[in-house]
Amino acid sequence: MAPSSLSRNAAALRDRIQDLFDRSGLMQHLGATLGDVSSGRVHVHLPFSPALTQHLGLFHAGATSAIADTAGGFAAMTQAPDGHTVLSVEFKINLLAPAQGESLEAIGQVIRKGRTLTIVQVDVFALNAGQKTPVALMQQTVMNLPDRQP
Amino acid sequence: MAPSSLSRNAAALRDRIQDLFDRSGLMQHLGATLGDVSSGRVHVHLPFSPALTQHLGLFHAGATSAIADTAGGFAAMTQAPDGHTVLSVEFKINLLAPAQGESLEAIGQVIRKGRTLTIVQVDVFALNAGQKTPVALMQQTVMNLPDRQP
Amino acid sequence: MAPSSLSRNAAALRDRIQDLFDRSGLMQHLGATLGDVSSGRVHVHLPFSPALTQHLGLFHAGATSAIADTAGGFAAMTQAPDGHTVLSVEFKINLLAPAQGESLEAIGQVIRKGRTLTIVQVDVFALNAGQKTPVALMQQTVMNLPDRQP
Amino acid sequence: MAPSSLSRNAAALRDRIQDLFDRSGLMQHLGATLGDVSSGRVHVHLPFSPALTQHLGLFHAGATSAIADTAGGFAAMTQAPDGHTVLSVEFKINLLAPAQGESLEAIGQVIRKGRTLTIVQVDVFALNAGQKTPVALMQQTVMNLPDRQP
Repeated sequence: MAPSSLSRNAAALRDRIQDLFDRSGLMQHLGATLGDVSSGRVHVHLPFSPALTQHLGLFHAGATSAIADTAGGFAAMTQAPDGHTVLSVEFKINLLAPAQGESLEAIGQVIRKGRTLTIVQVDVFALNAGQKTPVALMQQTVMNLPDRQP
Repeated sequence: MAPSSLSRNAAALRDRIQDLFDRSGLMQHLGATLGDVSSGRVHVHLPFSPALTQHLGLFHAGATSAIADTAGGFAAMTQAPDGHTVLSVEFKINLLAPAQGESLEAIGQVIRKGRTLTIVQVDVFALNAGQKTPVALMQQTVMNLPDRQP
Repeated sequence: MAPSSLSRNAAALRDRIQDLFDRSGLMQHLGATLGDVSSGRVHVHLPFSPALTQHLGLFHAGATSAIADTAGGFAAMTQAPDGHTVLSVEFKINLLAPAQGESLEAIGQVIRKGRTLTIVQVDVFALNAGQKTPVALMQQTVMNLPDRQP
Repeated sequence: MAPSSLSRNAAALRDRIQDLFDRSGLMQHLGATLGDVSSGRVHVHLPFSPALTQHLGLFHAGATSAIADTAGGFAAMTQAPDGHTVLSVEFKINLLAPAQGESLEAIGQVIRKGRTLTIVQVDVFALNAGQKTPVALMQQTVMNLPDRQP
């Protein structure tokens, strides 16, 4: 494939995920933004705000989980068959360290693509003064669903 | 213990959890409210809003997880030793059915209280037209932390 | 349905699960036995043996997981569509207390039956001197698979 | 540190883990063997046997989990403080593909070492005709315990 086709495809993929991201009310409400998108891999960023905290002032595990679930689900979406959307079936997240800093970055990466189920791993980092610290690790199962279900 | 002491204790417990809940920026930002509180058991409610959705218009798994993690963490908090707070170590959530309806209710229940770790189970229901449907099930590990860490 | 049909069906269900259980090499090798079987619910027993221990002499988490995964998978199997078998997709287990005693009992219970995926919860108890102590709690996702896959 | 000290330490670490492995009755009973050991990383091998199967003749998820839990727990053990042993608190495993082949290999790798809890990731591969296929992925939480508990 010529480089120009490759970059057209890459741009189309990004547009498709950006469109889904923009329709996610929660992502807008939390102030999250879509980062890099490539086949099987999606980044989501979340700047700190007091509106995202738990009782100790750290990022709430719910906020961390929300961007991790989104990065993972959309990573699966980049490899879903045509005419399909995706739905999270389940996930498990370990909160490795207190989530504090200027922002969080979640990176979803497809581990195993099946016909029905896709297994994704998501790393979440806290960014602070130029330093990147791992704060969470997620394993997620995502299901492919036909766009129009009976 | 006289009934009056019991209800004084129950009120004190509720006040303590309500105070922590009010300091959780994310809970206010999502529009969640604290429901019933008793020893080992906490309810959290979340009315539907377009600000809580994923790309298909359902409650985002991140919103579901946020109230489940809160209900579970505070259920553990009701049984934490004096002078301790709690922090989620990890959780796993199965999304049982599309989360749609007028509101969600998360009910956290302590399963096993240890010295350091508390294991909690959280059921999440969708409420719609008077019907209650299970939409998520969580297993969570919560850690007791001394209030002032070195 | 007449009581006699009900009990014929119950016996047929038990036979079907017993047959699958007998074909599970690992269950025989560990010394596990099938207990009660009903629609959506399966019990598995595991008598203690030094062959089942970890380095401290407790039941190994792998032994606990093996009978929990079996009880859960076969609980899902009792409700699988005709012409289908089941396969574990994933599970998460919390080890609630040191697993020691005369035997373990795992009880798998279907929580949510879907077309493709069944969500199961499994409780594991240790039995000792007539006492039953919860030692593990599992959430499991099981997939229905057509008997003959292409 | 001089190379000779380094290799003495490496040998001591391996001896320590091998000793714990040999005391794990289940590992002997399944026919598992200890592979490479280094700080934060432990390999466990499991040759196929009909005694390790589920009802379809694949490696039983309980066998896969048993060696994954062992590799992960002992990976945590390599970094546990002096005078401590380890206990699995919980784990979550995704079964990525049918586990079949000549043997399985589980590789546990410490992701985050805390004072009380260590988070470990375990990859499990099937080996067949010189090919290595990922069959499972585990996230595990392991607790440090003083050798002699009160």
